Amino acid sequence: MAVTDPVFKSRDEHRQWLATQAAMPAGFRTGSHRFAFTPQEVAKPSHMTVTVISLDRPTPAFAGLFTRNALPGAPVIVGRRRLQADTLGAIVINNKISNVCAPGGVDDAEAMCAATAQQLSLTPSQVIPCSTGVIGWKLPITDLAAAIPKACAAMRSDSLLPAAEGIMTTDLYPKLRSRTVGAGSVVGIAKGAGMIEPDLATMLVYILTDLDVGRDQLRECLRVACAGSFNCMSIDSDTSTSDTVLAVSSQRVSCPDLAAFQDALSTVCGELAEDVARNGEGVHHVIRVRVLGAPDAAIARGIGKAVVNSPLFQCAVCGNDPNVGRLVMAIGKQIGSHHPEVPVERLRIQMGGFEIFRNGAFALNPETERGLIAHLTAAELYASAIPVDGVFTPPVDYPPHGRRVEITVDLGGGGIHHHTEATVIGTDRSHEYISENADYRS
Amino acid sequence: MAVTDPVFKSRDEHRQWLATQAAMPAGFRTGSHRFAFTPQEVAKPSHMTVTVISLDRPTPAFAGLFTRNALPGAPVIVGRRRLQADTLGAIVINNKISNVCAPGGVDDAEAMCAATAQQLSLTPSQVIPCSTGVIGWKLPITDLAAAIPKACAAMRSDSLLPAAEGIMTTDLYPKLRSRTVGAGSVVGIAKGAGMIEPDLATMLVYILTDLDVGRDQLRECLRVACAGSFNCMSIDSDTSTSDTVLAVSSQRVSCPDLAAFQDALSTVCGELAEDVARNGEGVHHVIRVRVLGAPDAAIARGIGKAVVNSPLFQCAVCGNDPNVGRLVMAIGKQIGSHHPEVPVERLRIQMGGFEIFRNGAFALNPETERGLIAHLTAAELYASAIPVDGVFTPPVDYPPHGRRVEITVDLGGGGIHHHTEATVIGTDRSHEYISENADYRS
Repeated sequence: MAVTDPVFKSRDEHRQWLATQAAMPAGFRTGSHRFAFTPQEVAKPSHMTVTVISLDRPTPAFAGLFTRNALPGAPVIVGRRRLQADTLGAIVINNKISNVCAPGGVDDAEAMCAATAQQLSLTPSQVIPCSTGVIGWKLPITDLAAAIPKACAAMRSDSLLPAAEGIMTTDLYPKLRSRTVGAGSVVGIAKGAGMIEPDLATMLVYILTDLDVGRDQLRECLRVACAGSFNCMSIDSDTSTSDTVLAVSSQRVSCPDLAAFQDALSTVCGELAEDVARNGEGVHHVIRVRVLGAPDAAIARGIGKAVVNSPLFQCAVCGNDPNVGRLVMAIGKQIGSHHPEVPVERLRIQMGGFEIFRNGAFALNPETERGLIAHLTAAELYASAIPVDGVFTPPVDYPPHGRRVEITVDLGGGGIHHHTEATVIGTDRSHEYISENADYRS
Repeated sequence: MAVTDPVFKSRDEHRQWLATQAAMPAGFRTGSHRFAFTPQEVAKPSHMTVTVISLDRPTPAFAGLFTRNALPGAPVIVGRRRLQADTLGAIVINNKISNVCAPGGVDDAEAMCAATAQQLSLTPSQVIPCSTGVIGWKLPITDLAAAIPKACAAMRSDSLLPAAEGIMTTDLYPKLRSRTVGAGSVVGIAKGAGMIEPDLATMLVYILTDLDVGRDQLRECLRVACAGSFNCMSIDSDTSTSDTVLAVSSQRVSCPDLAAFQDALSTVCGELAEDVARNGEGVHHVIRVRVLGAPDAAIARGIGKAVVNSPLFQCAVCGNDPNVGRLVMAIGKQIGSHHPEVPVERLRIQMGGFEIFRNGAFALNPETERGLIAHLTAAELYASAIPVDGVFTPPVDYPPHGRRVEITVDLGGGGIHHHTEATVIGTDRSHEYISENADYRS
């Protein structure tokens, strides 16, 4: 996951940069509409935004990857079926309610597609539905179907930024990344990060390209790109019931080089994954763990995830506390439970450039301790503000980019080969996460 | 895990009850000594307590289970070897530093044994060492060896309660449970809970009995008891590098019935496991999840653990928020990732006696919502106090017993059989956990 982030100092600077990145690939249009409704499960008025992404002409070149959760949302069930369809003409997305295991959920997802198809002269099977938000509640399908024509009427083809904003729920900022390849482009937008939202669920990612890549090639490219990006990240270890990544090509621009396309797609996915982590609820630190010298990449990824998902290590990082005992505990926990055959004798660990473990033992002294504290402090996105009512609210409305806690775990299993390593992106665990997920009632 | 807890209203009431339970089984003595030292890794004075548990005569009937962490502490390495020894004469335990991957750690653990053996006329191989505390630091072995004779000089044979207190670190209260069988007894003490301590590690459990059970029988009984108790609990999913459970019989009293002994041992382990969870850092709610109708008990246990380890569900429970969408997410996450072949069509879920999921869909309405809130509120151990300095401190010094959030997950796979179910004990996630693990620097 090669990430070369501009270091945005403010929301405005980020916003200006986003505008330069958001140019719509040829052949796509998007529109959104926001409306009021009342969920039937609770008597509390709410708002929902519906967003439609459409192609000027339906394309066979589309790819989708969905959550592995065994109790997926209705849109995931419908979306998986749509992968068999000949062509895709549009995607329709709502926020606020994720339509997961709600009575009649699949019918409601199909009704979203039918309403969209009617506006765009498509068949319902040419439309993929997506929903994000509260799990268990039923979609307000009548209100939603009435809003879809309004979203279609608001269609524009200049920028993907309004769509990136339309799919937001409690995201702090829109997440959009792009790369050009020859005369074409790859532009992706994302919301959320695993199950990081209060009462909400879902990471949704949409990647649009005008580069002429075939259906099978696009599906393989997306699989490769996701394996090294979204499948290598975790905010809180909770796999959403609605995670969906879709890639769609309008095939309008000749693709000069498939390897360059793969590289652009992987880079966009990697950058969006880190954007999502940085925007995770209450995140004070983004943690990047590179694991190498493992028997295979899956084992390397598992070890990296064990580190970033360890609640105790997450808390220590949050407190700028170089408690490397917890780091080693997490590595040993993963290997002991899942890969007891993997040798640990040659394990070497670096954090912030300091070697902290080698030859089966820690290498700790007061100088290293000070260096680690400096690394953690420099990587901090913000410090907590003391709450007057017990509820922690981030004191910033925009997290600085380009800061990471850097950890390298070398299992010493031979040289450095791509297939024996993985880089995992994660986050720390803070009071702001607890406040967002426990202090506010749904 | 059958638990029939007295509902202690105060620390004093609990303390009085403990005194009635703590009578030492025949044939054992214990002593502790506290001393000052300075860790070499940081220049900050500290204190350590060393506790010795000895047998009046060495016994062949001892059993031990240790952490599966691939980077275990030196005492675990030594303890595993000791399982091959003919007899056990004593256990020596220190807190504050866990002796994990410290340079020369195994030599230090052996030196603890030698100093203890010398006092008690044993060989070092008749002594099992245990350490709990900071991972990565080196034991102050000179100071520790000098303290061991003082602990031996303080030996007593009336009560195990001083030993339960001697092994405490940041535990809120000593954890001791006992059962009688015929003329003998089974008494267990415990500290910690997985890796729940700030900068510390280790759950240590010692179970003493005078009932005459053979070595092989005792080892099998301990395996069975732990499978249903300590292996069915989680505070924060972090497996310590030092977890150790030892059971020792002095063989002084005839055992009238091995099944009754197994029952007593399993009950003591189950009660200690819940004591440990209740005392977990920042715990507001103990959560008990019974999973039944699974293909096997291991799958049932995995699903239960996925529920109690879900950060989002833990936060919701902490806030008395019946966010059952997160509960279903956690079940689906576990099945989808690890057991995609397990059918979910007949899944039924109850919480606090309310059925919330059946026939593939949620069954939610405002009345159920109110009932679930009432169940969560009644199970709350305490509510947070608003912190003046941003650091959350529990407003109670003793958690009430006998309160649990009760969840039943029925996968519908046939009838109710012991081998298709598991009961898992866990906890919620609170500001107090974050404060204890992030706000204080080591």
